[in-house]
Amino acid sequence: MAESEGSNGVQFFEGVEKLLEIWFTRTDGNSKQCDLRNIPRQKLESLLKIVRCEVISFIHNDQVDAYVLSESSMFVARRRFILKTCGTTTPLQCLKPLMLLVEQYAGFDEVEDVFYSRKNFKRPDLQMNPHQAFEQEVALLDSFFKDGAAYCLGTVNRDCWYLYTLNPLEGDNKKRHRGIPEPDQTLEILMSDLDPEVMAIFTREESSSAAEATQLSGDIWFTSCAFMLPPTVV
Amino acid sequence: MAESEGSNGVQFFEGVEKLLEIWFTRTDGNSKQCDLRNIPRQKLESLLKIVRCEVISFIHNDQVDAYVLSESSMFVARRRFILKTCGTTTPLQCLKPLMLLVEQYAGFDEVEDVFYSRKNFKRPDLQMNPHQAFEQEVALLDSFFKDGAAYCLGTVNRDCWYLYTLNPLEGDNKKRHRGIPEPDQTLEILMSDLDPEVMAIFTREESSSAAEATQLSGDIWFTSCAFMLPPTVV
Repeated sequence: MAESEGSNGVQFFEGVEKLLEIWFTRTDGNSKQCDLRNIPRQKLESLLKIVRCEVISFIHNDQVDAYVLSESSMFVARRRFILKTCGTTTPLQCLKPLMLLVEQYAGFDEVEDVFYSRKNFKRPDLQMNPHQAFEQEVALLDSFFKDGAAYCLGTVNRDCWYLYTLNPLEGDNKKRHRGIPEPDQTLEILMSDLDPEVMAIFTREESSSAAEATQLSGDIWFTSCAFMLPPTVV
Repeated sequence: MAESEGSNGVQFFEGVEKLLEIWFTRTDGNSKQCDLRNIPRQKLESLLKIVRCEVISFIHNDQVDAYVLSESSMFVARRRFILKTCGTTTPLQCLKPLMLLVEQYAGFDEVEDVFYSRKNFKRPDLQMNPHQAFEQEVALLDSFFKDGAAYCLGTVNRDCWYLYTLNPLEGDNKKRHRGIPEPDQTLEILMSDLDPEVMAIFTREESSSAAEATQLSGDIWFTSCAFMLPPTVV
């Protein structure tokens, strides 16, 4: 797990997660045989190296392949790809190689919709390119999508939420009414300024090994204080 | 009027206006004798030099002193200061000297509310510090006001409107319910991609002198194509 040392020598880990969600389709509408889960595991692992994280565990059902990552999670359904990563990961760096893999192995040839969102970082200066600034992230996304719309919800200089999604331009009748018809809600819970005594349970001092910490916390153990409750996707 | 030459050699003028509005008060509530219009004209002109513009004409009534500037307008009422400037002007650079003048000549000792807003620039790279980026403008404003809140309305990567205003922090009961009780609406009309033939009326080619152009257009004449309809404040 990537950690950074701030200018004051105190260890810092960026808990804010970057969420990248992409829905794929085919321009000829003939996508019945297409499936993102046909992308070989090894290719996905190479993709995650670009993002600067790796697979820790994997489960799946008929609907979705779910991966616990060293920095959060990845979900791969038939036509929906979700990558949610914290720390100094670089999820937007995987866009181009991901699209090549999707075309080669999954059979889709068009992005139907994209959602990239995150809260403002505590330490944007510690992020890697293009994640130091939302404007840089948007510039990269705009290089792939001609009809992307970027928003900033909340107060820019306190807590805010950045969002990039496809929002067809006026006059593009073909695509104006597209969008994802399936119901989709996201709930994000962010905790900060927690009680240090409670947080201590999740550190090396309180748990002598990863196995013990796993038993105590019921989940993944990190070298820094962190507790991960992977989200579920149906 | 400040004009810039873009990298392609084409003359460019930033039509987007920066609007700075400040309401003053006194901490002891005894502001009956205070008046921003007590600031000497010469001091205001020095202030505008910092902003990189100058006074072209002046009218006034009981309510307000109204100045037409080389780059738009300035309005000074008893406790309300409005500066609205386009081009590469630097209105936020005048904050500190303005506050010193207000304290010295007008008698107010506290800022009651601030509104700084503008559309996103066509060419932010041609702006002067701190106007190249909203984040820089916010950082400067935050250095003066502890309870400022910054917003971005609209799509960041197409057309958006930036706003900074005072929004008292939770727990600051004294100021939580403050605000400007007087009704106040702003209407901004921005025109772009106008008919070149219509625009030509406002250029040197169609008007041989400033006097003629003034007569034709009914208003101020600029060296580049521009028509200004100064707003009115009651």
